[in-house]
Amino acid sequence: MASYETVLKGKYPAKQHARRVAEYLRKKNPHATGVLYLEAQKTKLIEDNDSDMLFRQRRYFYYLTGCPLADSYFTYDIATSKSTLFIPPIDAESVIWSGLPQSVDKALSLYDVDAVRTTDEVASALAHPHEGPVWAIANQVSDHISFLSFSATDFTLLKEAIEECRVVKDDYEVALIRKANAVSALAHTEVLKRVKHAKNERELEAAFIGTCIANGVREQAYHSIVASGEAAATLHYVKNDEPLEGKLNLLLDAGGEYNCYAADITRTFPISGTFSPESRAIYDTVLEMQHVCTNMLKAGAIWDTIHLKAHEIAIEGLLKLGILKGSPEDILKSRTSVAFLPHGLGHYLGMDTHDTGGHANYADKDTIFRYLRVRGKVPAGAVITVEPGIYFCRFIIEPYLKDPAHAQYINSEVLEKYWAVGGVRIEDNILVTDTGYENLTAAVKDVEEMGKIINGA
Amino acid sequence: MASYETVLKGKYPAKQHARRVAEYLRKKNPHATGVLYLEAQKTKLIEDNDSDMLFRQRRYFYYLTGCPLADSYFTYDIATSKSTLFIPPIDAESVIWSGLPQSVDKALSLYDVDAVRTTDEVASALAHPHEGPVWAIANQVSDHISFLSFSATDFTLLKEAIEECRVVKDDYEVALIRKANAVSALAHTEVLKRVKHAKNERELEAAFIGTCIANGVREQAYHSIVASGEAAATLHYVKNDEPLEGKLNLLLDAGGEYNCYAADITRTFPISGTFSPESRAIYDTVLEMQHVCTNMLKAGAIWDTIHLKAHEIAIEGLLKLGILKGSPEDILKSRTSVAFLPHGLGHYLGMDTHDTGGHANYADKDTIFRYLRVRGKVPAGAVITVEPGIYFCRFIIEPYLKDPAHAQYINSEVLEKYWAVGGVRIEDNILVTDTGYENLTAAVKDVEEMGKIINGA
Repeated sequence: MASYETVLKGKYPAKQHARRVAEYLRKKNPHATGVLYLEAQKTKLIEDNDSDMLFRQRRYFYYLTGCPLADSYFTYDIATSKSTLFIPPIDAESVIWSGLPQSVDKALSLYDVDAVRTTDEVASALAHPHEGPVWAIANQVSDHISFLSFSATDFTLLKEAIEECRVVKDDYEVALIRKANAVSALAHTEVLKRVKHAKNERELEAAFIGTCIANGVREQAYHSIVASGEAAATLHYVKNDEPLEGKLNLLLDAGGEYNCYAADITRTFPISGTFSPESRAIYDTVLEMQHVCTNMLKAGAIWDTIHLKAHEIAIEGLLKLGILKGSPEDILKSRTSVAFLPHGLGHYLGMDTHDTGGHANYADKDTIFRYLRVRGKVPAGAVITVEPGIYFCRFIIEPYLKDPAHAQYINSEVLEKYWAVGGVRIEDNILVTDTGYENLTAAVKDVEEMGKIINGA
Repeated sequence: MASYETVLKGKYPAKQHARRVAEYLRKKNPHATGVLYLEAQKTKLIEDNDSDMLFRQRRYFYYLTGCPLADSYFTYDIATSKSTLFIPPIDAESVIWSGLPQSVDKALSLYDVDAVRTTDEVASALAHPHEGPVWAIANQVSDHISFLSFSATDFTLLKEAIEECRVVKDDYEVALIRKANAVSALAHTEVLKRVKHAKNERELEAAFIGTCIANGVREQAYHSIVASGEAAATLHYVKNDEPLEGKLNLLLDAGGEYNCYAADITRTFPISGTFSPESRAIYDTVLEMQHVCTNMLKAGAIWDTIHLKAHEIAIEGLLKLGILKGSPEDILKSRTSVAFLPHGLGHYLGMDTHDTGGHANYADKDTIFRYLRVRGKVPAGAVITVEPGIYFCRFIIEPYLKDPAHAQYINSEVLEKYWAVGGVRIEDNILVTDTGYENLTAAVKDVEEMGKIINGA
């Protein structure tokens, strides 16, 4: 297998993505012809300020172009398979401040498109008569663009097509996720090295972000969670600004983004280098959940089933520790384990951290599936996070303790010993294959190895 | 004088700001009564994504509340001087994921307002009949808010009033800028320590951002410029991703933001620890420009005059080096020095990096003043950047070389030796006082001291 560095020397396979998207349209609509039309994200100023907002390329546009430039446009003729990218022309005033923009020739050499023109030509290129409809995305068409020359317009199917195609990654996309993962793993290790002597969560966030930027991963895929002690039980903890003194564990959920593709990695480790007995017991349970669930993955596996398996192992572990009591079947049936694992087992990963095509049902009446972001069969080529966790969150558990239907299964005396554990989550990024899976995440999770790095051994 | 740490233990003086703003309204309109109405920035999702956009508090709102919370509201009754802050109420679903929000009591203890209520009460609080007008900001009023109970509405004067009041900083605001400066100076020093052994600009950007975050300065005030070699001549260089090998100097323009207040610091230094003779000559000229111009500052000084002085010293220096030729008076009159110093000498600094109230005239036909962001008298209490520079930018200088009106003053043979210098800028943040000024920026700029830090001596 070629290394990801080798794969990334080639071009992002935009043309192949366009073909797959057109094929999806034809499946839904056998006579689909016409033109796919997409716009890049616009440059925008910060409100009441003269600086640009943080730029994030529009994912639909990137998928069909591989082009990171703001204010660009794209067309793809379904019948001829011809793709055209329109990039911003030279602006004399802007050259003085910012230098020359990317040239048409340079763009043609960088991106997998058939033609490159400048954006001052988009409107006229669209204006001459076209056979067939234009396929575009609602609310992502500029005011100066008119589709009057087309026989029809469709503002819904293109979005759906791209979102569904994005689920199955090609080698180049997997290489981008590998690269984001490799740098993020370096950054996770840097945090392990510093955790014992750091004073505050923010020093660890700084180490993570700094290591990413220094290694060419400029953006974070999402807001890092750097949660010490009981803060780890707050699932969307964003403060990252609390002292570490007196805390048992650190939960670090952080991943960089490389050329629009995300890593999403969580590790939980003892700040001192050695877990307390309670923390170790919970860690071992979560590690087993992660191990067993990952091993269930292969093309066609049902994600709901794997998610249920995570709960079964959690229940088994919590029964063994005496936090839960009763029969495992009754506990699962009552959904009491949701008190300790309120979120889903994982989500697709790609250009978005929570990538498209998962078909979650947030209105599900069954609490165990409500926040599961992927439902049903997982195909080969999907990248999915496997991120089981067990949490001791007062806001979540206390209502269960007050409800006899759940309270009968919880031993609140034993539970008392576990609040200080906070929460444990272990999250890897898994590529699903026909015969099984490949784990794209190399960050250390073995307890002894983590301890060695923390202790500087 | 109290240290900034001591000052910052108090509350942000929001009430005093509200009084000053009301006073400004009354100056324009002696019978001004009614209510000032402001909204915080809203929480917004990233387009096509389920994560929040980077939150940046609306400056008008912060100035009158000192409150960093999203989705909040504020009213101030001019007649009674009563200020009321409305903060988001508890949302049960959100508590499960994010924990408890700030309580009304906590908010009352933190912010300098007379009353705190929850945002579900804003609309009804505004609905009962009011005497006098409501003063609000255009396009910053939510759809569910109605001003029907007021005798009149004004959507322009409040914005102007806040922008003008913001020019003169009080002790608390200066303390915030001092704190942003102190941490940014640490980060500048960290870059000096690493520059000799780093391979790429991005490692230095990482060191800067990492040092800021580790020390509690989470946001950057603006996109850092980390420009090596000739890239330093690109005024808005944003790439920060080029190798350092073979480059002479690094220009680092970077500053953190603390509680909405900015630092904005530029240093230029030799990557090897020792300037080339050409670089040193340019550095010394820019340092003299900075020194002389800063010394001209006191309440009532005319910024245009100080800016012209910078050009005079630049012309003198470039004549001495033989890059320019002719009489200094003729060169200044012809505006040829704008080829080497195309930007203005500085800008107000505060909650925005380019702070409000400067009254720039970007349509000025005189090229030397076109990009000057402050015009006219500078009052005591203003914080202004003094940031002279000399640049060797081909895109800017080449048109001058082709224009006989300018080319007669430029010796292009001597100029050839200076392209590799790139550009030199030195920027400090200066508090203007009645009798002179105070420099808020402690980052090293002495050539020998910089060399010692770079060489690890």
